[in-house]
Amino acid sequence: MAETVPPAAPLAPSRRRSWWGWGTDDKALSDGECVALGALVPGAADTPLPVPDVRSVDLPKTRITPPPSLAHLMSDTPPARASHTYGKAYRDVVRALRGELGAAPDQVAFPRSEQDVVDVLDWAEGADVVVVPYGAGSSVVGGVEYRGERRRAAVSLDLAGLDRVLDIDTASRAARIEAGVLGPDLEAQLRPHGLTLRHFPQSFEFSTLGGWLATRAGGHYATLLTHIDDLTESLRVVTPVGVNESLRVPGSGAGPSPDRLFLGSEGTLGVITEAWMRLQDRPRHKASASVLFDDFKAAADAVRAIAQSGLHPANCRLLDPGEAALSGVAGGGRSVLVLGVESAHFPVADRLAELVALAQDHGGSPAGTTRPPAGDSADDSAAGAWRSAFLRMPYLRDGLARMSVISETFETACTWDRADALYEAVHRDLGAVVREVTGAQGMINCRFTHVYPDGPAPYFTVIAPARRGSEVAMWDEIKSAAMDVLGAHGATVTHHHAVGRDHRPGYDRQRPEPFARALRAAKNALDPAGILNPGVLFDGERG
Amino acid sequence: MAETVPPAAPLAPSRRRSWWGWGTDDKALSDGECVALGALVPGAADTPLPVPDVRSVDLPKTRITPPPSLAHLMSDTPPARASHTYGKAYRDVVRALRGELGAAPDQVAFPRSEQDVVDVLDWAEGADVVVVPYGAGSSVVGGVEYRGERRRAAVSLDLAGLDRVLDIDTASRAARIEAGVLGPDLEAQLRPHGLTLRHFPQSFEFSTLGGWLATRAGGHYATLLTHIDDLTESLRVVTPVGVNESLRVPGSGAGPSPDRLFLGSEGTLGVITEAWMRLQDRPRHKASASVLFDDFKAAADAVRAIAQSGLHPANCRLLDPGEAALSGVAGGGRSVLVLGVESAHFPVADRLAELVALAQDHGGSPAGTTRPPAGDSADDSAAGAWRSAFLRMPYLRDGLARMSVISETFETACTWDRADALYEAVHRDLGAVVREVTGAQGMINCRFTHVYPDGPAPYFTVIAPARRGSEVAMWDEIKSAAMDVLGAHGATVTHHHAVGRDHRPGYDRQRPEPFARALRAAKNALDPAGILNPGVLFDGERG
Repeated sequence: MAETVPPAAPLAPSRRRSWWGWGTDDKALSDGECVALGALVPGAADTPLPVPDVRSVDLPKTRITPPPSLAHLMSDTPPARASHTYGKAYRDVVRALRGELGAAPDQVAFPRSEQDVVDVLDWAEGADVVVVPYGAGSSVVGGVEYRGERRRAAVSLDLAGLDRVLDIDTASRAARIEAGVLGPDLEAQLRPHGLTLRHFPQSFEFSTLGGWLATRAGGHYATLLTHIDDLTESLRVVTPVGVNESLRVPGSGAGPSPDRLFLGSEGTLGVITEAWMRLQDRPRHKASASVLFDDFKAAADAVRAIAQSGLHPANCRLLDPGEAALSGVAGGGRSVLVLGVESAHFPVADRLAELVALAQDHGGSPAGTTRPPAGDSADDSAAGAWRSAFLRMPYLRDGLARMSVISETFETACTWDRADALYEAVHRDLGAVVREVTGAQGMINCRFTHVYPDGPAPYFTVIAPARRGSEVAMWDEIKSAAMDVLGAHGATVTHHHAVGRDHRPGYDRQRPEPFARALRAAKNALDPAGILNPGVLFDGERG
Repeated sequence: MAETVPPAAPLAPSRRRSWWGWGTDDKALSDGECVALGALVPGAADTPLPVPDVRSVDLPKTRITPPPSLAHLMSDTPPARASHTYGKAYRDVVRALRGELGAAPDQVAFPRSEQDVVDVLDWAEGADVVVVPYGAGSSVVGGVEYRGERRRAAVSLDLAGLDRVLDIDTASRAARIEAGVLGPDLEAQLRPHGLTLRHFPQSFEFSTLGGWLATRAGGHYATLLTHIDDLTESLRVVTPVGVNESLRVPGSGAGPSPDRLFLGSEGTLGVITEAWMRLQDRPRHKASASVLFDDFKAAADAVRAIAQSGLHPANCRLLDPGEAALSGVAGGGRSVLVLGVESAHFPVADRLAELVALAQDHGGSPAGTTRPPAGDSADDSAAGAWRSAFLRMPYLRDGLARMSVISETFETACTWDRADALYEAVHRDLGAVVREVTGAQGMINCRFTHVYPDGPAPYFTVIAPARRGSEVAMWDEIKSAAMDVLGAHGATVTHHHAVGRDHRPGYDRQRPEPFARALRAAKNALDPAGILNPGVLFDGERG
């Protein structure tokens, strides 16, 4: 049954990455586009923050020189250091635009092999240098930013050089893949074999397999295989005390799962270098439908019925009225449920029909049979603008950031019995905080990105004008209140954005204390010198 | 959306449990039935081992007296101690029959509340007494047997008193359930609400929720929700350093999963007292079919295609020719694939038809359309005897044990690329060991109990006559060889039977060393005195 085939050649990315914002430079908004976008938000600034020239930004002096044996892997050029200082949260982008780069790593290491990773860790441990594992830097939770206030020198460990699919087992539909590969390059290497990982986070183009694994990323499927965890067959992790390679098996009951300790460890326990991942056949049958609801609660009930039906839609995304209007999908205060089904083997139209019927049972109207009510035309024009905007959302977020408009998200999951109260509390209580902090009405929208039989994963977007120069402080105040609301309503501090450093307050409250002790003990056992990503998951320099 | 209803009253079990063997005394084979059964196995003994009177078995002297505050919870009567000495593996039954009870716990504690559990652990830690958490004692891996050679006194902590469903959240289809509840009592409490956990291990009647969770039990579903892990929303665990309660959420990406550390911890990190479990609506639509194959490899290919189809059958059990004959389902060297689909909401006939069509594509013949070949009639008569026998398999196992016939199972999982080689190696290499050890041909059969897109979970049964008085040593030799074969073929030492003490050699080889360090550190952090189930997962008295 064994059938191992040589992998296809990897593809190299061709466009230049933005050092301060999302994605590639060629897609960033021009100054004029920023101004036009800002004009849509009452209270936005009139002029965009300028983008600093990365060659002349102010960086703290590098305090370490790599040993000769590692020098060829390391760089301390301003572009290398500046682009590895932050992730891509709103607060990261603003600070980069302001040239606030005091937390820049002293060096950036670019290993080309697992042995290089081992060598960097060995050296760092001996030299008491902090190592921050770095995939493609799309963290929105401060996961790649060492905040040690320069107590120790720090190296950003950029795994982009480990970008190959090493083995494909077509019988088991699994592949051994290096952790630094970007989403598109991964899929390009799998495509010739008719296979796909089918893990498509919003960050797909600019995030890596290793990053997905280390942060328990959420992906393509709204049901069943929601997290990368579910697609993971085994991991290979370089820890300071040795390489941890789990047995490649489809399922096991042999003690607590080794992989589940490293999934979500966010670079604090080791550096993931390879994984055997479960793949899918490429889907040949796809169908989707949208259903409109006049009432968001009725729509949520429909989603609950669908999630509990066993029909397992690939997509089941519910947009609340604000989100639907912002996305240009619907106006008039209506909510929209987008359903999608897919299969590599069987036609899916019947299943989609069953899903739509379930939605109709809860008061939904299939979009195709519903005409927009009179008066929507004005909305529709704005919605049209936002529709195309939605496709470029992270770039727009950067444009808004340049106009001193807070544009940020937070996401969670809770059980169904708490979902209504949470939704209301976010709009009511966090809305009040937004008004108090920004002095403006602002906007809070919600969509369900993933759904489970026992609850939804709501994803909130906050847009509000900020005072120039105080953007980060103002967002931090809102974010802190958001974590309070989540905690008060029994909702997790993050469903798939990870903990990083920004979610620590909520995470510390959520994590049971005995488990915290156990995890710290595991950390100290694997990383006795405390060099791995200090401040993430754990306090201080040690776990 | 919240909807919490008062739970129904718990049901009490009514029949007397066997102290030495499986289940209840009323279902044990009579001496005459044992002899008749033994006659089917060439080389079996002529007379059954007698069943000792539990009131007069030889037990080591109890070395501890519980403090007055706990005395009402504890018992050191011979029936209590004898029945808590072993699990229910073949080797356990044989030793109990032989009255070899030197490992008996000094006391058996029967807590009635979580506070009782806390109090017992507090006392045990102070008194340096080992605590072995005990659900209903169905472990087949030595999980409930302290093998400290009486270095320390030991208490078996029987959680049968914690048997209630405490809350039901019908909106989220979840329930808060005490860990000591037996399968039937759990389902009886859920049934009035139209809900079911639908976790039906073979041990269902005689195992508990807490035991399933602590051992990562495998259940009803052949695909998707194969392990109890997948049904777990949150856990409440009493550890020596405090109570660990995880947040009840449908999904989360907040650091490594707290629950996944305790799932599979087998009583070494804490005592699970409660869990919020994900429930199902009771299925209203069910359909099943059997498909015959002349060739086992073709049948395995069919199972692989089904596992990778996305059709998610509830049942997908493949019996190899020996297992099919033994179960009386088919003779003539044919393999049988049993398929089942179920839904609470939708008719399932179409899905079953698609599954059967897939099996036919791989050479299968639907059983209804296939007539038994001539010459099967003699087989059919033996098969008929075995068919009814299969329903009582654990009782038959005990009957065979009394006739000095080894009758034991081991189970595993591996990726599809290794499955053929593993299947052949077990029959070839382990078959040779069985012949060498027992001097008889013996019988090794296989079925797939669960299947995944990336591999099957094969379950092997070994039946062979043993030399009276050497049964345990002979089985241990075979079992050791079985672990070697699994390890050599990249298969897990256990898919759902847990590690316990019997699987330690294979587990120690399988568990990555850095993870072993981390887990030991976690153990020492949660159980600093090393009182919890020493010898399981870890060496010695400390982790």
